[in-house]
Amino acid sequence: MRILVVGASGTLGSAICRELGSRHEIVTAGRNSGDERVDVEDFASIKALYERVGTVDAVVSALGKVHFGSLADMTPELMAIGLRNKLMGQVNLVLAGTSHVADGGSFTLISGILSHDPIKLGTSASLVNGAIESFVEAASIELPRGIRINAVSPGVFVESMEGYGPFFRGHKPVPVADAALAFSKSVEGLRTGQIFTVF
Amino acid sequence: MRILVVGASGTLGSAICRELGSRHEIVTAGRNSGDERVDVEDFASIKALYERVGTVDAVVSALGKVHFGSLADMTPELMAIGLRNKLMGQVNLVLAGTSHVADGGSFTLISGILSHDPIKLGTSASLVNGAIESFVEAASIELPRGIRINAVSPGVFVESMEGYGPFFRGHKPVPVADAALAFSKSVEGLRTGQIFTVF
Repeated sequence: MRILVVGASGTLGSAICRELGSRHEIVTAGRNSGDERVDVEDFASIKALYERVGTVDAVVSALGKVHFGSLADMTPELMAIGLRNKLMGQVNLVLAGTSHVADGGSFTLISGILSHDPIKLGTSASLVNGAIESFVEAASIELPRGIRINAVSPGVFVESMEGYGPFFRGHKPVPVADAALAFSKSVEGLRTGQIFTVF
Repeated sequence: MRILVVGASGTLGSAICRELGSRHEIVTAGRNSGDERVDVEDFASIKALYERVGTVDAVVSALGKVHFGSLADMTPELMAIGLRNKLMGQVNLVLAGTSHVADGGSFTLISGILSHDPIKLGTSASLVNGAIESFVEAASIELPRGIRINAVSPGVFVESMEGYGPFFRGHKPVPVADAALAFSKSVEGLRTGQIFTVF
């Protein structure tokens, strides 16, 4: 398969490229690195990415920018960070990308455990993850030509504990390779409208 | 109790006012009608509403604007309608309103069955409802002074079948009074972080 991985340079994106790269042709895309550059907060940039890349069998997203902060200090502007990036960045990858995905191809988005197991300072992440999961369920019944869509919902990564550990006290961290494996299940399997939890 | 009902003039808002109005003091707010006017898409307008209304025991939202349309025709701009109104309108009622809610008071937001039982043309509604539900779960653990937050997730209303029936073929419609009853459960009960389903 030919697979477009957006957000390929991060902890998760790198692991996805390692997991899928041994069997498939990977096209990496990111804001500052990768085979292709894309600003996922700009719909025109996403459309231009697809024009350059052409048809792919799968689109995989490892986007993740949301603001962590207390509900008391949260503002519409801080909430908008996650809406623009992790939420609408991914939704727009689907809206702009459907016509560039081959028959029977797939989208795999990233949500996260906070959709249903919230933590202190995580209201924006929870909101975004819940939105992604419900969007995936809904989009799966409307996508044409057998195109599938799933989300992977991982817990905090072992590899991210240095930065995120204090936020996720008591959460059992998961190896990022396990999350990457779930992306393979989505891309190479046949299911659609699923939230593959990795925690 | 003194209860602020935002979106009070709609099918649901009116039913909530009938349900809660027999036992409580209701302050109604809406874009074009009510005791107070508010543009929920404008954070400054929400803040001004709370300044005028003062302290309340409960804030109840019956907001509901989202765009219904096919995934193929969906655009970032059409998605933004629901993000601005039903999603961030309600989130901002919480962000701006917490300091105006009495100790042990509550917020009750509206989501809907499409968060987990999607229909054709409903991707935006599903996304917004999923976001609301996860936000409620997350916000419930951070709200101060015993303030609670829940969402009511109803199916399509009997009273709305003329307009929405074609979208909800096969869905069993629920009387709007049943949804209003769930708002009472949230406002007059003690639970928090719950999604009260009415379908």
